[in-house]
Amino acid sequence: MDFNLEQFTREVLSRKKYVDSCLKEYLNPEDTYPALIHEAMHYAVFNGGKRLRPIMVLEGAVIAGGKKEKVMPAACAIEMIHSYSLVHDDLPAMDDDDFRRGKPTCHKVFGEANAILTGDALLTAAFELLAGTIDKDETMADNLIRVIALISRAAGSRGMIGGQVLDLESEGKNIDYETLKTLHTLKTGELFRASLKTGAILCDMEESGLEALDNYSRHFGLAFQISDDILDVKGDESFTGKPVGSDEKNLKITYPKLFGLDKAYELAQESVKNCIDSLKIFGNEADFLRQLACFTIKRNS
Amino acid sequence: MDFNLEQFTREVLSRKKYVDSCLKEYLNPEDTYPALIHEAMHYAVFNGGKRLRPIMVLEGAVIAGGKKEKVMPAACAIEMIHSYSLVHDDLPAMDDDDFRRGKPTCHKVFGEANAILTGDALLTAAFELLAGTIDKDETMADNLIRVIALISRAAGSRGMIGGQVLDLESEGKNIDYETLKTLHTLKTGELFRASLKTGAILCDMEESGLEALDNYSRHFGLAFQISDDILDVKGDESFTGKPVGSDEKNLKITYPKLFGLDKAYELAQESVKNCIDSLKIFGNEADFLRQLACFTIKRNS
Repeated sequence: MDFNLEQFTREVLSRKKYVDSCLKEYLNPEDTYPALIHEAMHYAVFNGGKRLRPIMVLEGAVIAGGKKEKVMPAACAIEMIHSYSLVHDDLPAMDDDDFRRGKPTCHKVFGEANAILTGDALLTAAFELLAGTIDKDETMADNLIRVIALISRAAGSRGMIGGQVLDLESEGKNIDYETLKTLHTLKTGELFRASLKTGAILCDMEESGLEALDNYSRHFGLAFQISDDILDVKGDESFTGKPVGSDEKNLKITYPKLFGLDKAYELAQESVKNCIDSLKIFGNEADFLRQLACFTIKRNS
Repeated sequence: MDFNLEQFTREVLSRKKYVDSCLKEYLNPEDTYPALIHEAMHYAVFNGGKRLRPIMVLEGAVIAGGKKEKVMPAACAIEMIHSYSLVHDDLPAMDDDDFRRGKPTCHKVFGEANAILTGDALLTAAFELLAGTIDKDETMADNLIRVIALISRAAGSRGMIGGQVLDLESEGKNIDYETLKTLHTLKTGELFRASLKTGAILCDMEESGLEALDNYSRHFGLAFQISDDILDVKGDESFTGKPVGSDEKNLKITYPKLFGLDKAYELAQESVKNCIDSLKIFGNEADFLRQLACFTIKRNS
């Protein structure tokens, strides 16, 4: 399929702006008492992220024939969860990173204790936002509970947090392909999966559609991770916001390290093809997702 | 009213056992992959706590004319939130405590990174458990969402986490009575309030009843905190599990420090009286709550 990086990047940026404006609206204002924690929450959320997860929530709604506005709170809630995980991952006891996307990390600005609490607060705020989105339509209440179950499972000890545990355990060790794949599936894949399904469930998509989306996001997670690893080797620091070769420095096992750059790129391309194949049952309404899959391996940040 | 400490302590212990057995059932088994995080979650939850919050959830259900079993998942979810907050509070960057109730704290056993993740995982598991408790009755779905909103608000940046931020900010400073009261209301009071209301809401209690319970738990939180401060000065380490005078050592402002021991005890007694006054609209079904208020100032741990 045709893919124009420049045009698609503009499209992603315009959606990112929409998500950002809603995130600002949903977060408690920075001067909410106690101000320190609310300032830190804003600082952590507005970190220059691409907002891929909320964009996927919105897209799930569109493909299900629903409205983006309806699922925006859920989209922003998932981004808050993603933001909290970055704040905690950056802590001295974890990856010990001083910068993220060129900005000092949360604990460098607000101190370690407040950074821990900021992550906690963002995670909690995500569920407050989710539970606050109910309209009076009762079907919506059931869907919302299903979505809260889905998201908490994906973000929890058998999902994202489990992945971070494996990541810390694996540092400096030789791990095999299967372990690496499990690690990434848990650490980043599960929340991508939950994102796309969340939008679709809230807009009443039937099971066969949900299954197709689920397949898409499994392959998407893999394509995304491999290309992330490739960017770490080949990327331009001014785009990626982190020093080239930081995985190497942190003794992380990556796809290029396991397979070499060429083979890793091939694997990523294969995953993108699988993404697109998963969308066969949909028509034009899934074009954005098809492009998004291509974007993962064409992007430069 | 008549209050028999020994008899009531037995009653609390028997309820604690019931809660513990359910917590064990609801947590993922310790050998769930990755085992490290699930072991740590069990370690953090089974820390010898009195389970006052879940006991209050169950009591809210009973007073509303409902069944304890119906609200047990919500009761255990709140205890998981309480447990996560203790794990994070104990961290080196926070209160830096090596022991809790005589046992090494989570980060002393599992390391700092895993302790942060364990807290995160318990907080997330609480919402997974809450969302997993839906039965097919649709009214229940609405109540459940109301309860998730209530609990996340109470545990968040304008509740428990906000209180911890204030607590850290206040360390070593002279703070006045109003600030101290706000600090404790946020840090411990809000979750007590949410607990009692959670059980009652899930069992369809009408608004006037909820208001009475809300008044009770406001006063309960205060009585509990003042008596906690008094125990820190007067208590027996073998009961309380923390060294006598640890607040003094940590430069914490306490009620006895602000008012002297006698006046602090008087304030606690007044709060207990207010608790009991709040329950006027209820009959015998609220006797346990009346006794629980007395218990806060009579207990020795």
